[in-house]
Amino acid sequence: MPAPADTLTIDWVDGGVRLIDQRRLPEEFVLLDLRDYGDLAEAIRSMAVRGAPALGVAGALGVALAAAQMAGEREQVFWEGLAQAADHLRGTRPTAVNLFGGIERAFRAAAAHRAEGPAGAAAAALAEARTMIEEDIAANREMGRHGAALLPDQGNVLTHCNTGSLATVHYGTALGVVRAAVEMGHRLHVWVSETRPRLQGAKLTAWECQQLGISHTLIADNVAGWLMRQGRVDAVIVGADRVAANGDTANKIGTYSLAVLARAHRVPFYVAAPVSTIDRQLASGEAIPIEERSAEEVTTVSGRRITPPGVVAYNPAFDVTPARLISALITERGVARPPTTESLQELFPTPATAGPCL
Amino acid sequence: MPAPADTLTIDWVDGGVRLIDQRRLPEEFVLLDLRDYGDLAEAIRSMAVRGAPALGVAGALGVALAAAQMAGEREQVFWEGLAQAADHLRGTRPTAVNLFGGIERAFRAAAAHRAEGPAGAAAAALAEARTMIEEDIAANREMGRHGAALLPDQGNVLTHCNTGSLATVHYGTALGVVRAAVEMGHRLHVWVSETRPRLQGAKLTAWECQQLGISHTLIADNVAGWLMRQGRVDAVIVGADRVAANGDTANKIGTYSLAVLARAHRVPFYVAAPVSTIDRQLASGEAIPIEERSAEEVTTVSGRRITPPGVVAYNPAFDVTPARLISALITERGVARPPTTESLQELFPTPATAGPCL
Repeated sequence: MPAPADTLTIDWVDGGVRLIDQRRLPEEFVLLDLRDYGDLAEAIRSMAVRGAPALGVAGALGVALAAAQMAGEREQVFWEGLAQAADHLRGTRPTAVNLFGGIERAFRAAAAHRAEGPAGAAAAALAEARTMIEEDIAANREMGRHGAALLPDQGNVLTHCNTGSLATVHYGTALGVVRAAVEMGHRLHVWVSETRPRLQGAKLTAWECQQLGISHTLIADNVAGWLMRQGRVDAVIVGADRVAANGDTANKIGTYSLAVLARAHRVPFYVAAPVSTIDRQLASGEAIPIEERSAEEVTTVSGRRITPPGVVAYNPAFDVTPARLISALITERGVARPPTTESLQELFPTPATAGPCL
Repeated sequence: MPAPADTLTIDWVDGGVRLIDQRRLPEEFVLLDLRDYGDLAEAIRSMAVRGAPALGVAGALGVALAAAQMAGEREQVFWEGLAQAADHLRGTRPTAVNLFGGIERAFRAAAAHRAEGPAGAAAAALAEARTMIEEDIAANREMGRHGAALLPDQGNVLTHCNTGSLATVHYGTALGVVRAAVEMGHRLHVWVSETRPRLQGAKLTAWECQQLGISHTLIADNVAGWLMRQGRVDAVIVGADRVAANGDTANKIGTYSLAVLARAHRVPFYVAAPVSTIDRQLASGEAIPIEERSAEEVTTVSGRRITPPGVVAYNPAFDVTPARLISALITERGVARPPTTESLQELFPTPATAGPCL
């Protein structure tokens, strides 16, 4: 299923939001055109679009779409409706901070143009969302540049979940770093952990590696420790859904186990994420809300039940890896190493309390 | 899908081998009646019957079945045929030592009755296989008794793969220990790791827990480390496919990761296995052959492809956990703790070189 190489994961096209429906990959490459912010909220909830950076843009585009829908309304109706839309979008997924950051950026942009009336405010929200799209692509390229230097000239890199183009607008975070390294001539082979329950590794990362011609092998999540034991993993690189001020990182469930395993085997463990994923308001990862999703994601695969009826499953979508297990955090502004609290602060021009960093 | 509580996983019934077809659980409870040892070999290869202790009995019954099929042959034809049958059965699965032990026990029993002709030798092979069936059930009960004392009075026990009745003739090894503890009044809740790629946890262990009324929750394998981090796992207990003389343990892929995670979180990690799983000929786990199974087990679930076409997967069925990560090895003869080489030796009445311990 080859995709047009220049298709963005999520974009503003023809007066609405266009996104790749990731629920249907790798079987089908389908674009969704959404004209109602409620439909976009549902697309976020059901993970038609996912990945923290992509969710940031989705949040901003959601506000822009709501604003466009209501641009003809009276002032008060518009602002009340836009606030409701922002709340509705915020209620979709709790862990990735980018979603909230994107919603806030677009909303603030609209508010800054309040004097121009609903149509002007809507235009400002859309302009901000489009800026975020450009920033995302540029940030991923920069992350790739900073991160590639950390990866070996040749060897095996293990990655978890999907952090490629599909998790962003384009290019990717952790998989973007691998891609950048390969483009620079590193001879890397990628172990793709399938990432139960939703199999983003098997479905999305394997698909992206195929598209990009990156050498890869799929493994059940259970295999990672055994590969490390055999010396067959030279680095682990993952993305992030929220990074606390001290570097503690929420990411796809299973990330924490990989970090413990990597430490036990002296394998470097890298996190690649844009600064928009850093939540400087949270001192540590303990305060990060962890989304618990439906048990059905575990008890069924591709719509087919794998368990006896009545079996209960526990399905946290994320876990939190403490900063001490992270060798380096790769951002578009540079690489933060332990002590992470201090090195993260150096990436920001202003103190955390000074204003809207997101 | 309730099963008759007294159905043995594998047994000799009406002149042939009867076994529960575990490929069809939990959807259907189907008994296979096999009259040809080649069909039994195929049932072993395709995992209609699996689990190290059950494979030991399957190996013995396979020899008994082959012997019964050829009992009317001339002496030379019978013994050449029986040796071929044993080789054929040995070629099905390489890791669980019980399979080889069971084949050898039945073959030696037949050979010891060579003077009685093919019919007498065949009867002796069957008698030996039946002895193994009885020994298996008794050993599991004893393992339960020894192991239950190690489990907390109340709390959460995590188990991997399936080690219940279905992995044995009846009662189980690691899950048998949990079952014994629950029968003794321990208030335990079981975290059932689904055990990709073949999902023995989701399909078989969850089913057995339901049948037995043992409180349980299914998790993706990715969740184990996060549960430990939160203090929600009080013990891990698994089975074994082969234990080396020093206590290194081959078991279902993912076991090694669980052992590393358990050690990192100071959670006790137990292995329950009959002494027939101990391969005293192997000094350490490095010499244990690890079966690599078809990539299709990873790229498909319940017959449906989860990856793009062409994706390659690496699918080792087992890994090896070093003895230093195992808090205790529970056998029917007692519990072996580190230093494991010495404590395992104490379980055996004779030195490893003295004769056919298996």
